[in-house]
Amino acid sequence: MAPSPREASPKLSQAMEDCREKVNKTISSLLPQTDLAEAPLFDAMRYAALGGGKRLRPFMVLEGARVFGVDAGRARRVAAAAEFVHCYSLVHDDLPAMDNADLRRGKPSLHKAYGEATALLAGDALLTLAFEILSDTETHEDPRVRIELVSNLAGAIGMHGMVGGQMLDLIGEKQEFDVGTISRLQRLKTGKLIAFCCEAGAILGKANPAHRQSLRNYAHDLGLAFQVTDDLLDVEGDAKDLGKPTGQDAKKATFVSAMGRDQARARAEMLVEQAISHLRVFDEGRVDLLKDLAHYVLERRV
Amino acid sequence: MAPSPREASPKLSQAMEDCREKVNKTISSLLPQTDLAEAPLFDAMRYAALGGGKRLRPFMVLEGARVFGVDAGRARRVAAAAEFVHCYSLVHDDLPAMDNADLRRGKPSLHKAYGEATALLAGDALLTLAFEILSDTETHEDPRVRIELVSNLAGAIGMHGMVGGQMLDLIGEKQEFDVGTISRLQRLKTGKLIAFCCEAGAILGKANPAHRQSLRNYAHDLGLAFQVTDDLLDVEGDAKDLGKPTGQDAKKATFVSAMGRDQARARAEMLVEQAISHLRVFDEGRVDLLKDLAHYVLERRV
Repeated sequence: MAPSPREASPKLSQAMEDCREKVNKTISSLLPQTDLAEAPLFDAMRYAALGGGKRLRPFMVLEGARVFGVDAGRARRVAAAAEFVHCYSLVHDDLPAMDNADLRRGKPSLHKAYGEATALLAGDALLTLAFEILSDTETHEDPRVRIELVSNLAGAIGMHGMVGGQMLDLIGEKQEFDVGTISRLQRLKTGKLIAFCCEAGAILGKANPAHRQSLRNYAHDLGLAFQVTDDLLDVEGDAKDLGKPTGQDAKKATFVSAMGRDQARARAEMLVEQAISHLRVFDEGRVDLLKDLAHYVLERRV
Repeated sequence: MAPSPREASPKLSQAMEDCREKVNKTISSLLPQTDLAEAPLFDAMRYAALGGGKRLRPFMVLEGARVFGVDAGRARRVAAAAEFVHCYSLVHDDLPAMDNADLRRGKPSLHKAYGEATALLAGDALLTLAFEILSDTETHEDPRVRIELVSNLAGAIGMHGMVGGQMLDLIGEKQEFDVGTISRLQRLKTGKLIAFCCEAGAILGKANPAHRQSLRNYAHDLGLAFQVTDDLLDVEGDAKDLGKPTGQDAKKATFVSAMGRDQARARAEMLVEQAISHLRVFDEGRVDLLKDLAHYVLERRV
């Protein structure tokens, strides 16, 4: 039997809701609204980036930034950049040549709404926009901070990061992977972007290397826990709650297919405890929501 | 009658050949060769990036860098980054949802050789790799230079640059544009990346604003001339020489369709003269090849 559904703590729910609202405003302000002939591109980007979603990655950026007392406006710009990257990856993943998904966040996927060519270009533009934002002086006045954000993001999402993981995902449909390779797949596909999100606050706040490493360790374990619970939700979750069909990963290499549901759940619990333990070096009041977030990842139903 | 074919000057030919060889080595060194499970992604990137091509954009970077006495190794890294962006745009443009092109540079296009999903991801990875390269300390030790390269490239190729131009290109298949809109389309689609290539040397060499503006003006006119001759080649050129079918732009908005061949050629000639005039502020010996390049753009058969 699946564990009984639990909500996020009221404090976490409120903070996530606040984050969603503020980051959505930032996202909206970063996307043009014009009557230029190419406006359908901007509309498609807006559709993809403002179509709902939990904004978990922006939340990580904002909370990571809070640990180091970083200006919230700057953090929101980085949060928006990270979310643009996440949205680009979903748009390209949903294309017929990839997962061929008709639904995303309970609505028609971008290519269903705008056509394949526009969806392809909107994904490309969202990815590029992330780098435009990070390299803009409004994100931070110190060029060393900006270039470190760019360098870290690019490393997290390219051939040795997210895109490499998506390639492994494709190959895993035809080839059986051991748990080690599945771990690597997930670390590349989702873990490295999550690590960027958690570390971005440390970069913005010029944190010392030890503190930055602690956040990176937290992110590493949280990212893996997140992926395990994602796999579990694909098996156990409710399509209506999730806004997308379940059972889609049956042919893919997942933790659940490799180790079964019980072991997968036990692993997720272990990872969450481990993630939280890395936060001990920080003041309790600055990392309370990051701790709550880790618990939420385990208990979420969507 | 088409003008008689003329070759590039022997000096220019030799310099372009040198550039091709050196930049190909740099490109090769920046792409991994591993036996990791995701190696097909790296192979696809290599296929797309090392499949021939004139390397006009890298040549512009190298020659722009020579004007300001920039270290050639650094310039080659930026040249490779620009070429990765160009190759990514070709890979995505060739996909069935876009131009559905089976041939590129005389070989099967990437999705024909590696499948659509891998081609999509390889394009994404090439784009991201460009930012990894530019943000790496090996490209320049000064973070201000690196972030300026990143910011300029991102601005040139995103929604207000190349991708915006590709969107206009799509829309132009269904809607007639006036010459002004076609100019804007071409400036976005190819002109802005060419401008980045020509200006990159000025950024690397910390050139004064006036000199940088002169190179930008050269690039602007050269880029438009290049596009006009590209349109002319699609009508007049030889498919075998070009390595791709001609007559592909018949349904697209081009200068040739808007103003006819004679006027288009006259415009290209005027633009090339104008481009060269912007180089007067530099020592003759430093910009001789940039001048030759402008003439070559007009007279090229491929």
